[in-house]
Amino acid sequence: MEKQMIAELKRLVGASYVMDQLEDRICYSFDATFRDFPPDVVVKPGSVDEIVAIVKLAVQYNVPVTARGAATGLSGGSVPVKGGISLVLTRLNKIIEIDTANRVAVVETGVITENFVNAVSQTGLFYPPDPASAKTSTIGGNIAECAGGPRGVKYGITRDYVLGLEVVLPDGSVVELGNKFDGEMAGPDWTMLLVGSEGTLGIVTKIYLKLVDKPAAKQTLLAIFSSLDDAAHTVSEMIASGTIPTTLEIMDNLTIRAVEDYLKVGLPVSAEAILLIEVDGSAAAIAKQAEHVMKVCRECGATEIKAASTPEDIDKLWQARRAISPACGKINPTKISEDATVPRSQIPSMVRRLREIAKKYDLKMVIFGHAGDGNLHPNILSNKHDHAEMERVEQAVEELFKAALDLGGTLSGEHGIGYMKAPFLKWETGETGFAAGQKLKQVMDQHGLLNPGKLFNA
Amino acid sequence: MEKQMIAELKRLVGASYVMDQLEDRICYSFDATFRDFPPDVVVKPGSVDEIVAIVKLAVQYNVPVTARGAATGLSGGSVPVKGGISLVLTRLNKIIEIDTANRVAVVETGVITENFVNAVSQTGLFYPPDPASAKTSTIGGNIAECAGGPRGVKYGITRDYVLGLEVVLPDGSVVELGNKFDGEMAGPDWTMLLVGSEGTLGIVTKIYLKLVDKPAAKQTLLAIFSSLDDAAHTVSEMIASGTIPTTLEIMDNLTIRAVEDYLKVGLPVSAEAILLIEVDGSAAAIAKQAEHVMKVCRECGATEIKAASTPEDIDKLWQARRAISPACGKINPTKISEDATVPRSQIPSMVRRLREIAKKYDLKMVIFGHAGDGNLHPNILSNKHDHAEMERVEQAVEELFKAALDLGGTLSGEHGIGYMKAPFLKWETGETGFAAGQKLKQVMDQHGLLNPGKLFNA
Ligand SMILES: Cc1cc2nc3c(=O)[nH]c(=O)nc-3n(C[C@H](O)[C@H](O)[C@H](O)COP(=O)(O)OP(=O)(O)OC[C@H]3O[C@@H](n4cnc5c(N)ncnc54)[C@H](O)[C@@H]3O)c2cc1C
Ligand SMILES: Cc1cc2nc3c(=O)[nH]c(=O)nc-3n(C[C@H](O)[C@H](O)[C@H](O)COP(=O)(O)OP(=O)(O)OC[C@H]3O[C@@H](n4cnc5c(N)ncnc54)[C@H](O)[C@@H]3O)c2cc1C
Repeated sequence: MEKQMIAELKRLVGASYVMDQLEDRICYSFDATFRDFPPDVVVKPGSVDEIVAIVKLAVQYNVPVTARGAATGLSGGSVPVKGGISLVLTRLNKIIEIDTANRVAVVETGVITENFVNAVSQTGLFYPPDPASAKTSTIGGNIAECAGGPRGVKYGITRDYVLGLEVVLPDGSVVELGNKFDGEMAGPDWTMLLVGSEGTLGIVTKIYLKLVDKPAAKQTLLAIFSSLDDAAHTVSEMIASGTIPTTLEIMDNLTIRAVEDYLKVGLPVSAEAILLIEVDGSAAAIAKQAEHVMKVCRECGATEIKAASTPEDIDKLWQARRAISPACGKINPTKISEDATVPRSQIPSMVRRLREIAKKYDLKMVIFGHAGDGNLHPNILSNKHDHAEMERVEQAVEELFKAALDLGGTLSGEHGIGYMKAPFLKWETGETGFAAGQKLKQVMDQHGLLNPGKLFNA
Repeated sequence: MEKQMIAELKRLVGASYVMDQLEDRICYSFDATFRDFPPDVVVKPGSVDEIVAIVKLAVQYNVPVTARGAATGLSGGSVPVKGGISLVLTRLNKIIEIDTANRVAVVETGVITENFVNAVSQTGLFYPPDPASAKTSTIGGNIAECAGGPRGVKYGITRDYVLGLEVVLPDGSVVELGNKFDGEMAGPDWTMLLVGSEGTLGIVTKIYLKLVDKPAAKQTLLAIFSSLDDAAHTVSEMIASGTIPTTLEIMDNLTIRAVEDYLKVGLPVSAEAILLIEVDGSAAAIAKQAEHVMKVCRECGATEIKAASTPEDIDKLWQARRAISPACGKINPTKISEDATVPRSQIPSMVRRLREIAKKYDLKMVIFGHAGDGNLHPNILSNKHDHAEMERVEQAVEELFKAALDLGGTLSGEHGIGYMKAPFLKWETGETGFAAGQKLKQVMDQHGLLNPGKLFNA
């Protein structure tokens, strides 16, 4: 990278927010995936104007720009595979407004998800999207990946809450997309092009989010199964029976043991599978719903159902859910985390196929995820230095994608495509869809400088 | 139009589905707005393949194509302002599948909204979007305009239910956009570009729609006010108090009298305003909610509140709501129907401004609409042959748009831009947003043949 450019960057945002030493660059070379690519320079802008100036400078010097929130991404989105600028957005971390009358919040991109959730909660309202990484991830990263979470079953995913965006386009112009409040609609809505665009179409700077009523009460249930198939079947039965719980998470035996080992919260380590189910609403409604949930679980073969009602017990169960990722990380160094998603009625078939794939390629695979909205998280636990194993992993992953698409599903329910799944994207979009995606990318980002090597530009 | 092209069209779809006589062309020259432009030819394809062939032919002969559902549009969307082909989509009227397990329905574009709503209802599920034109409008038209309706307050608008689309692009290629079921997300979502695109970016042929639980029970309340300001204030108070009813419709005195005159259902003709409020949910929950609603109404000055509980009484109230349009049509021949929308907290200010505008320009204006989501329908009742009056109407409309934007609102909550509001679109999008919209249109529709004269292409 030209010295002249580094100097100009320093002038633009201040020297202390521009880092080009090797040790800094290495710190910004990876995310929660397993390959790393250092940027040439790390820049931490403090305002939209600075971002505009940086993007214009990048065009001038023909240097790639890769936005980065908290780098918790699971498809390599924030990793600068073609070098250039790592644009770290964590300084834009202001919650600008929580307008309770219109139920709209306005935030800057770098706000930590959980900080926002808590601030909203204090006003008596509710922001449902809850990725397991909420304590670390940024709202901007959630938008760019269209993050999901356990509550997606009932409340939907990030896209369902994005009303409008302020975006710096790849040529440095700033545009407001979508709506500032709910219910308006004038012309085609560009917002959703940016949601899930993984930093390839524009830099999101400000976000208008929809808020909803906070449920009056909730109850958490833990259903224990001696067969994974039974647990999977329970999920599709539950949905088909017309009961939509708030969350419906599945964990297989390997997951349960890993978490228990890591956290010691008293999970049933001999169970083949558990379902973690939460219902919320008015006190009267949840009592009835919980009853129905238990009935379906029993009918589908649950051997035991525990109801957590104290805040501490509920919290323990959720701690366990959130601990899956780190717990699995302790078993094997390399965690290949997929989130192929299928229609909810196909959960039993998908679980069966996943187990066959793990067996066929002799791999350690944990299965967990937001089963209630069809979003399974098969994680292959391996070692990236064992090349023979990594080859089998690659084959298994391909087969797993094929299985999901085959069952009417998708490559990714929430983690995005990044560079990891880009080679397979065409399987899902088809030729025409892929060509359309490429064309869109070319039109919006003429010089191909925003997050190259990802999605349609891989 | 070249004879050769007409002949080819007849060969493609059958002679009986191609009409180019003046009387046919006139029948397809207007919608619910007040100007008419006859197409050169009316074509009624029976399949996606035929649509592809027609679109390709149109490119070959450089002839505009304007999609048309039921032509109930209120911004002139289906009117072929530049002539060419009126592509009538009513023959694609199959409900392909209602998948209750995954809560997804697949329909062809020409399905009548109400037929679909009823078919879903029979499976025990619920499709909430309910434009007042549902008995006539098509689902495709609803998608293209992103239709709203009374239930939008609680359930959102059409966009909230569109999962995926099959679309014939302007070059005749066919693409599947978005998702086939809920919760998936791989890459940027093109679906929302098409939702609300008013036939300017592609011809929607197949639609994947999300379905939800049918509420167990509902109750309808009629709150009567001796001041329109009080009624408007009740709306913003209600929302701010945290109670989101299913519907929250407002009607001013002129509206009430017009409807009562037309329908004779016993509306309180001396009331300055009424609010029509529905709550739904479990029996227990709605009793509590109805109580809260009544409390807020009383506190804000309602002089009387009637609860409709028998299906007949409820139906009468909704009949009254649906009859507003035809009833107003009887007062004056030309109805300029706007749907400028503001944040819900701004409803009282907007109502005040509307009345000032009506007075200033000496116009007969009725005010009604989905007040609960900020979507007011000021309708100016006039006579298009009275040129002096129409000039005042034009000025009033401009002022009304400015007022909405001024209060943080939008030109259109649901009726779209069409040719009617196109001259004002830039006020809302700003220069950059407008340029982006034009660029998108140019890229997707190189020859500018899809519904020219509308939206960004006016
Ligand atoms: C333990 C763990 C659990 C997780 N659980 C979940 C889960 O339950 N659900 C889920 O959906 N995901 C989950 N994830 C994945 C990840 O947390 C999410 O994808 C999250 O949304 C990423 O946010 P981030 O701020 O870390 O973004 P980053 O990883 O920094 O970036 C992600 C992508 O967004 C782009 N980006 C970031 N900010 C902007 C911006 N302002 N404008 C444009 N592009 C931008 C980047 O370029 C990149 O492509 C989990 C990850 C971990 C490590
Ligand atoms: C009495 C009355 C009450 C109304 N109430 C409401 C209401 O409550 N809420 C509301 O939102 N609207 C309302 N409207 C407006 C209108 O009914 C809606 O906009 C409706 O969605 C239009 O549907 P349609 O099938 O009639 O479409 P059309 O009027 O035929 O077409 C509308 C637009 O959609 C395009 N289009 C149609 N089909 C396709 C397709 N397959 N692919 C691409 N483009 C297509 C057309 O080109 C045009 O631009 C009302 C209208 C009337 C007359």
